[in-house]
Amino acid sequence: MAGSTFGNIFKITTWGESHGKGIGVVIDGCPAGLELSETDIQIYLNRRKPGQSKYSTPRKEDDAVEILSGVFEGKTTGTPISLVVFNKNQKSKDYSEIASYYRPGHADYTFDEKYGFRDYRGGGRSSGRETIGRVAAGAVAAKLLKQLGIQFTTYAKSIGPVEITSFDASQIMENPLYMPDAKAAEKASAFLEECMKNQDSAGGIIECIVEGVPVGIGDPVFEKLDANLAKAILSIGAVKGFEIGDGFAVAASMGSTNNDSFAMTDNSIQKLTNHSGGVLGGMTDGSPIIFRAAIKPTPSIAAMQKTVNKSGEEIEISIKGRHDPIIVPRAVVVVEAMAALTILDALLMNMTAKVDNICSFYKK
Amino acid sequence: MAGSTFGNIFKITTWGESHGKGIGVVIDGCPAGLELSETDIQIYLNRRKPGQSKYSTPRKEDDAVEILSGVFEGKTTGTPISLVVFNKNQKSKDYSEIASYYRPGHADYTFDEKYGFRDYRGGGRSSGRETIGRVAAGAVAAKLLKQLGIQFTTYAKSIGPVEITSFDASQIMENPLYMPDAKAAEKASAFLEECMKNQDSAGGIIECIVEGVPVGIGDPVFEKLDANLAKAILSIGAVKGFEIGDGFAVAASMGSTNNDSFAMTDNSIQKLTNHSGGVLGGMTDGSPIIFRAAIKPTPSIAAMQKTVNKSGEEIEISIKGRHDPIIVPRAVVVVEAMAALTILDALLMNMTAKVDNICSFYKK
Amino acid sequence: MAGSTFGNIFKITTWGESHGKGIGVVIDGCPAGLELSETDIQIYLNRRKPGQSKYSTPRKEDDAVEILSGVFEGKTTGTPISLVVFNKNQKSKDYSEIASYYRPGHADYTFDEKYGFRDYRGGGRSSGRETIGRVAAGAVAAKLLKQLGIQFTTYAKSIGPVEITSFDASQIMENPLYMPDAKAAEKASAFLEECMKNQDSAGGIIECIVEGVPVGIGDPVFEKLDANLAKAILSIGAVKGFEIGDGFAVAASMGSTNNDSFAMTDNSIQKLTNHSGGVLGGMTDGSPIIFRAAIKPTPSIAAMQKTVNKSGEEIEISIKGRHDPIIVPRAVVVVEAMAALTILDALLMNMTAKVDNICSFYKK
Amino acid sequence: MAGSTFGNIFKITTWGESHGKGIGVVIDGCPAGLELSETDIQIYLNRRKPGQSKYSTPRKEDDAVEILSGVFEGKTTGTPISLVVFNKNQKSKDYSEIASYYRPGHADYTFDEKYGFRDYRGGGRSSGRETIGRVAAGAVAAKLLKQLGIQFTTYAKSIGPVEITSFDASQIMENPLYMPDAKAAEKASAFLEECMKNQDSAGGIIECIVEGVPVGIGDPVFEKLDANLAKAILSIGAVKGFEIGDGFAVAASMGSTNNDSFAMTDNSIQKLTNHSGGVLGGMTDGSPIIFRAAIKPTPSIAAMQKTVNKSGEEIEISIKGRHDPIIVPRAVVVVEAMAALTILDALLMNMTAKVDNICSFYKK
Repeated sequence: MAGSTFGNIFKITTWGESHGKGIGVVIDGCPAGLELSETDIQIYLNRRKPGQSKYSTPRKEDDAVEILSGVFEGKTTGTPISLVVFNKNQKSKDYSEIASYYRPGHADYTFDEKYGFRDYRGGGRSSGRETIGRVAAGAVAAKLLKQLGIQFTTYAKSIGPVEITSFDASQIMENPLYMPDAKAAEKASAFLEECMKNQDSAGGIIECIVEGVPVGIGDPVFEKLDANLAKAILSIGAVKGFEIGDGFAVAASMGSTNNDSFAMTDNSIQKLTNHSGGVLGGMTDGSPIIFRAAIKPTPSIAAMQKTVNKSGEEIEISIKGRHDPIIVPRAVVVVEAMAALTILDALLMNMTAKVDNICSFYKK
Repeated sequence: MAGSTFGNIFKITTWGESHGKGIGVVIDGCPAGLELSETDIQIYLNRRKPGQSKYSTPRKEDDAVEILSGVFEGKTTGTPISLVVFNKNQKSKDYSEIASYYRPGHADYTFDEKYGFRDYRGGGRSSGRETIGRVAAGAVAAKLLKQLGIQFTTYAKSIGPVEITSFDASQIMENPLYMPDAKAAEKASAFLEECMKNQDSAGGIIECIVEGVPVGIGDPVFEKLDANLAKAILSIGAVKGFEIGDGFAVAASMGSTNNDSFAMTDNSIQKLTNHSGGVLGGMTDGSPIIFRAAIKPTPSIAAMQKTVNKSGEEIEISIKGRHDPIIVPRAVVVVEAMAALTILDALLMNMTAKVDNICSFYKK
Repeated sequence: MAGSTFGNIFKITTWGESHGKGIGVVIDGCPAGLELSETDIQIYLNRRKPGQSKYSTPRKEDDAVEILSGVFEGKTTGTPISLVVFNKNQKSKDYSEIASYYRPGHADYTFDEKYGFRDYRGGGRSSGRETIGRVAAGAVAAKLLKQLGIQFTTYAKSIGPVEITSFDASQIMENPLYMPDAKAAEKASAFLEECMKNQDSAGGIIECIVEGVPVGIGDPVFEKLDANLAKAILSIGAVKGFEIGDGFAVAASMGSTNNDSFAMTDNSIQKLTNHSGGVLGGMTDGSPIIFRAAIKPTPSIAAMQKTVNKSGEEIEISIKGRHDPIIVPRAVVVVEAMAALTILDALLMNMTAKVDNICSFYKK
Repeated sequence: MAGSTFGNIFKITTWGESHGKGIGVVIDGCPAGLELSETDIQIYLNRRKPGQSKYSTPRKEDDAVEILSGVFEGKTTGTPISLVVFNKNQKSKDYSEIASYYRPGHADYTFDEKYGFRDYRGGGRSSGRETIGRVAAGAVAAKLLKQLGIQFTTYAKSIGPVEITSFDASQIMENPLYMPDAKAAEKASAFLEECMKNQDSAGGIIECIVEGVPVGIGDPVFEKLDANLAKAILSIGAVKGFEIGDGFAVAASMGSTNNDSFAMTDNSIQKLTNHSGGVLGGMTDGSPIIFRAAIKPTPSIAAMQKTVNKSGEEIEISIKGRHDPIIVPRAVVVVEAMAALTILDALLMNMTAKVDNICSFYKK
């Protein structure tokens, strides 16, 4: 199936493998007239760039984006925007070993079973580098959303067992773990040092808050905004769980506490609490959208692991090369990008919800 | 947006409101030659029928399904299957009160904001009765999957604070809460009695295990099987969270324990553990698929709640009529139905993954 | 494949067989707030109803439409509109003969080859009755388009060898052949009488003119308005050709005559001629959209025909029962319905073309 | 709307403008294991390359394709195939004049009205160069189809008033007009010389014959193979009409002659004639698929034309630069490419039509 396309109106198609010629994305359906430069996109890509800290791979890739189409005289034209990051770091490394066996926690085995073979160089299409296309497209979506007054705050809520206990948004960009709590970030750093010594890796939780989305965005039944967010977030490689608002905690709560009362605030309807996470019946309810993603530990670890090779022999392996001991920090911007893509698409879809709006649009 | 359609090849479109003429679904893309009777579907619908126990609404609806098209001489023809359950219980109740205000935890406010008005009778399109279409279609999908050796085990893992501590699949259909642990079911019953006395409601967790899915089902990047399951499950009204395999627990686990080793078992590759929940890189890995859904407490409660009415006045309300104190038991089959629809669609999509398979199919 | 769904935002799914329980359509994505009654739809359905004249089948079917969902207090709610026409004329006729062989010009053979068997009663899903769903949905689209000032004029341009030589729109509804030329209609009637005597059937051409569509509707590249119209029209059973504007005549024309000059008329840009048929580069250009469909002769004829049966024997058959000697008149409204569905969908899609429009919509 | 995506399973997204950095296409959903090289694609691209004869623009563009992803060790991997042709001929020409007015027969006016502005360099996105992406993707589809025994014969049937009177497939590649009749090609050449002298341009008809497609490909109702072919062909810039089999000639034919009788030939069911053009009820019937496209004259002509400029003044213009006096020859391969894409997609869709096939595939 054509699995590399996402979105209905603002539709993106990503392509590229870790060690191929490049990674790219085509955005089809971007409205015309958005001012857009490579810098707008590069700022986002830099947030997922490796080599930013000792917790991420030291490969010094530039990951410089180029706009190949769809922008003229500094503005989007309404036609497809083709973005590419050419791979500069295609070392002629020997991949014969990695080609011969199935790494635990990776997609090597499932790729081989599905397609008969795989591009084994650096994970091929299932590499984390695949997210470059998502982030580049998400940057464009986020720029348009910003003009509509919509803002994202995305951060690491926990790193392994270390959870934030305070929240200061200004701290997020101040530490390499993107935690909004400087002390937690320090503790988490110490924890990760330990992890690396043990040739092991850790997981964590990313939280995303979206403010400024109008009421009524998202559609009932199958195209609920939270359902599409869940798909968007679970489509990121290492994500194993998604929750919105109180999430799994609702299981043990009561209706009387979980329901959010409506009240009049500043002459408008507002919820007094936000257990719902900003979505009721699949449509935004005016409160901030709050959701979380559970990120698994990096599967590539240096510690010895049991597995089988393609000849069906049981073997023990140690995955060489330096790998991030944690996926969370670099995934923060990927989560934000996927949320931006999902919300923009829902906003565009919403414009045709009412006959009155259509008549006004066409001045009838 | 056209939000009532789900699936790519096995595509369903549901329609109908709680108190309209009926609820239905059209299945477009069902393969030809499947033996199908109304009984096959009714068995599934009966699992979500109200009035089964004291924890579900006493309305004695028949919810009898009719096949209107797509089946000829007992078999599906490959053309659209139209299924309908006519509503028999459209009491000429007075809805003027409920029409005037916004129930907390419901979609009344968001519907009004999005569409300008709403069918307020019994929740209209956002009623739990909307799931009839999903369950009817899911029954058809499940029947086809059974022929492929794919089986579902779905149950309540927790009801409010009461979690199962043992697992006996044969118990699931033996208690009205669909718990695989008779003792937990008893405790949960006692807890729900208390809830009802307090005019309150409770949440819980549903777990689903899918066995027999071949390796390699699902697609990389955006159409990962777990991503589509997440969307399918979050699209069910009361779901606030989704996790697969170890889910949110991965956040605090280590790579060395979270990775599932491969080994040779009975001459085939098998994972020794199943932290992944049966999916690696978005494709099935041969282990059972295991996922969970967090279900919020029923928002309709008799206890007094604050809200606002359509005139913008703050009021207090008590929602009349008898409502289930818990959504979980009746949602078990809805979760199973959505999983069946998602997995069948992925299986159909997978048939075109390899040129060799296409050549064999067309005998070239 | 799920082939019974059409449209992107205003999406319809039709279902039903000629001699099953009924024929229906679900419209998903109809904007909220459109006043809609069964009468609005019935008026359209009556235009394709059999038994209107001696050139159409004398079966006196009511074809009365029922709205099952999506309309509340006389207005569309934004949720799926389910429409059904129950079949009243399911005679317990003996179909064993027709089941045994392949009628020339029909889909009997291709259905059997694709699906392994077919609902052979009255053509099953490939019957002309399938168009009931299209016309019902098209009536809803046309009602919304009327509010936007968009009007359709659709008629028989030729019946067999008889072509119109004058055009008087008021004549269209005055003759059973829907010709805008009373004299041509008379000649065509005489021609059809002759056809019937010869146990034969005739084809013809339907023309459709759409006025009032704003400039810029349709999308470049694959979603050109004319490309989508072509698909819509060719998806009608008996259509073998589609052309827009000068159509096939452009092949022998010159650029200097085929190009339409722009000029200023009443202070706005207008084309001086309309060889383009109202579309340039796939987008409407402000002139009326004009297109034609070529309709083949009714394949069911009483004259003897050679064919083979399911046992692979060559036989001669004469198709019994009375069949329309011409499809054109009843297809006029089907062509109009498909055009309405296509144009409305394009209008809805167009609302997100410009960032400025999106910002105005969301008041930013 | 996202208008640059085509196909369901074998899905392509094209991008790029005439004078931007390049033109490309991403193929998402290509099955794994197809041997594919840049040469396979280049052969197709060369058939639409300009500068091949005196009837096409003398710009000596290389139009050399690069594969950026999706192919590993010489075979497709099942992941997106990104193809690009970088533009080498971006002269710093002065476009200020062309930017200021609306060329008759072009999409300048409609682009401006839809998007607020346009990339006016060489037609931007509505340039004929946009078809490079289609042809590149079509080459991949055609290679896979060839393995299934499916072959295309595409040619110019008429050039202006000159129609072929004989058919010799071996002649098609022997003349720059791609006519299967050497004498007609000569006459057509003389006609085009005259055209050029008159600063005018001509149209024509392209015919495509597809052999080897199994019976039953395509889907009933809206996804009829001929409907999708019609959309595919009308989506090509200059096409104004599409017909299949006898096409518009059916209008004046009779059922007794238009119906194709079935007979037993070599122990299999075959049609004795092929008025249907290889499609019955939207599904292939075993006869060759035959369809035609009407191509309008090149709108860019040197002769004086009336138009208006962006200030709303009526002006007279002569379009400078050398332009092909006819689009037909270079469009031949574009028609073939679109047909290949459509038919491959339908073949892939067809694999899930029967439960038996699905069970065999999954060995149950």
